[in-house]
Amino acid sequence: MTIIFRYCIYHSFKMQLTRVASFLVRGHSVSRSGAVLIKNSYCVSAVRDSTALLYRRHGEPSQAVQLESLHLTQVGPESVLVKMLAAPINPSDLNMIQGTYALLPELPAVGGNEGVGQVMEVGDKVKALKVGDWVIPRDAGVGTWRTAAVLKADDLVTLPKDIPVLSAATLGVNPCTAFRMLTDFEELKPGDTVIQNAANSGVGQAVIQIAAAKGIQTINVIRDRPDLQHLSDRLTALGATHVITEETLRRPEIKELFKSCPRPKLALNGVGGKSATELLRHLQSGGSMVTYGGMAKQPVTVPVSALIFKDVKIRGFWVTQWKRDNKHDEDALRSMLDELCVLIRAGKLSAPACTEVSLQDFRKALENAMKPYVSTKQVFVM
Amino acid sequence: MTIIFRYCIYHSFKMQLTRVASFLVRGHSVSRSGAVLIKNSYCVSAVRDSTALLYRRHGEPSQAVQLESLHLTQVGPESVLVKMLAAPINPSDLNMIQGTYALLPELPAVGGNEGVGQVMEVGDKVKALKVGDWVIPRDAGVGTWRTAAVLKADDLVTLPKDIPVLSAATLGVNPCTAFRMLTDFEELKPGDTVIQNAANSGVGQAVIQIAAAKGIQTINVIRDRPDLQHLSDRLTALGATHVITEETLRRPEIKELFKSCPRPKLALNGVGGKSATELLRHLQSGGSMVTYGGMAKQPVTVPVSALIFKDVKIRGFWVTQWKRDNKHDEDALRSMLDELCVLIRAGKLSAPACTEVSLQDFRKALENAMKPYVSTKQVFVM
Repeated sequence: MTIIFRYCIYHSFKMQLTRVASFLVRGHSVSRSGAVLIKNSYCVSAVRDSTALLYRRHGEPSQAVQLESLHLTQVGPESVLVKMLAAPINPSDLNMIQGTYALLPELPAVGGNEGVGQVMEVGDKVKALKVGDWVIPRDAGVGTWRTAAVLKADDLVTLPKDIPVLSAATLGVNPCTAFRMLTDFEELKPGDTVIQNAANSGVGQAVIQIAAAKGIQTINVIRDRPDLQHLSDRLTALGATHVITEETLRRPEIKELFKSCPRPKLALNGVGGKSATELLRHLQSGGSMVTYGGMAKQPVTVPVSALIFKDVKIRGFWVTQWKRDNKHDEDALRSMLDELCVLIRAGKLSAPACTEVSLQDFRKALENAMKPYVSTKQVFVM
Repeated sequence: MTIIFRYCIYHSFKMQLTRVASFLVRGHSVSRSGAVLIKNSYCVSAVRDSTALLYRRHGEPSQAVQLESLHLTQVGPESVLVKMLAAPINPSDLNMIQGTYALLPELPAVGGNEGVGQVMEVGDKVKALKVGDWVIPRDAGVGTWRTAAVLKADDLVTLPKDIPVLSAATLGVNPCTAFRMLTDFEELKPGDTVIQNAANSGVGQAVIQIAAAKGIQTINVIRDRPDLQHLSDRLTALGATHVITEETLRRPEIKELFKSCPRPKLALNGVGGKSATELLRHLQSGGSMVTYGGMAKQPVTVPVSALIFKDVKIRGFWVTQWKRDNKHDEDALRSMLDELCVLIRAGKLSAPACTEVSLQDFRKALENAMKPYVSTKQVFVM
């Protein structure tokens, strides 16, 4: 897949004259990630060095990732120095480290694709950013699990500083995915219904809140679990119209639910397999099911009759592709972020439940992020 | 599902005072199908009586269908008397008789949904039709397997008489399905590629020809069979760019094919199951797969990654629904039929290979229509 970024590494312990390493030796050139690895050193100066969670091979995240020090490059005329403030662990970050994601950076790579940082230094030619701005990456692959980075100004977009830092750190992927899926596939009016599985995921929680703010009803499907009532109450507090388990969705009594709300126009699928087929069963004629994840590692199975006679539309969504497709349309991303920030300020869109961890505690954080039924998102706070 | 039509029946042998039968007894009223069944009589006068293939229960077509005589009603002010000329047996006709189709007429019903007839008599208020016109049904459910019928003028659309009668009889369903699928889902330019399974079906043959006329390449997938080379030659003569078996499509060597033609933008699926998944594998990013049939009686299975990272779109198409959705847009159907007739006159769109049979030979015709690997369409010629 696409090579997202390269950086030149200096690591005498295992130094090999690879293409990348020799490139460094020749002229200490550095790439857009602007970091040079410091030999066996975890001593980091405020703005010239960076501590980063790096992986040199694909594998189980808590084993493959190491905390290492990177020397930051000079800030070029079109670059900025960013001090990272907070960066979450998302499922796609883990898949990237495992080597199973559709998009894999060249190794070694810094983990993490999302997060908020503050601009500390600005290159001569940079117009769009100033020192003190909060910024998030425009695209995946930046490597956000680190204390600081020198990045191209064009690869960043500003956020207002009057929103909580955890909201800013988790805004670029999940709420944007939820926003686009609720906007781009079906024309939803107040009173319409959306059904989703994985309702407790980061995307799921954002879907509940954005839909509620628009007056759209949500049927939220979750897996049965020990703390079911607690989770159900929490999602209801976020604005969920109905919270039901996968088992309940399969029962005939579910028909009762559709006496009080219309059949869904839109189904959002983060699971796949049987769960997706169940969502489809309840979709209204002509409705769409949008798949954004496949936690069950099973394909989406669609009865032929649903396609022909119910005219259901089966689609997929990947926010990274959306951002790339809209790279040259500054307004597209800006207007979505602005709208989401309005919701955040109004108390209508909160960050998912987060557990804040330091970069040093990365092993525990990565292990926790892999556990099923963990209802909080691990976020590195630098 | 929708009740397509009712007719009043008189059949003393099994007469029951059902709602329909008693309705007849009261005033000899008749419905839009304009037929009264004549007791045990197969004697048919030229225009006042009709011989029809009728079914009174759902079941295996060759067993459930009977040849019976219907007495035609008076031609009302908005109706016309139509002498049927030819009517094919389509898979959906068989599913309707079996009771497995999405749309089932009230029983008893006359079989057949497609066919061409000639107007013999016209009601006072009918403006759009005149005696001698060739007409085909606008919608499914008319019951075309009969010698004559009194029908509402609004339910018919004219065809020019300078095309072969077999082309006219088989134009309304399969070529219209092929035309719309090639038009409504992806913007296809000359040189683009379409992949389809069931390439030898009525729809498949129309796809080959319409695509070829537009300069669109087709990859045509068929099941392995004894007369493979003969069938392959016949499809190639129709304009197929490539004809391959399901087995060949699964082999790694298939990659060679895509050195000479671009990956398909559009996949047309009349089979479902593994065959559909194989079509999907070769679709280009952002392409669509449209399902119009499910001969394998297996659902369509879509890898989550194809939806998210390849942005494939999974859709369905049903020409009956299209006709209903466009019922009030006279131009939509007219312009499509005109365009197809231009292709027919130019020798670019021929009727599928047909076996002409009389209504009397219906049992053999229905049995033949159920057989696999039969490469000709059974068409009743009245």
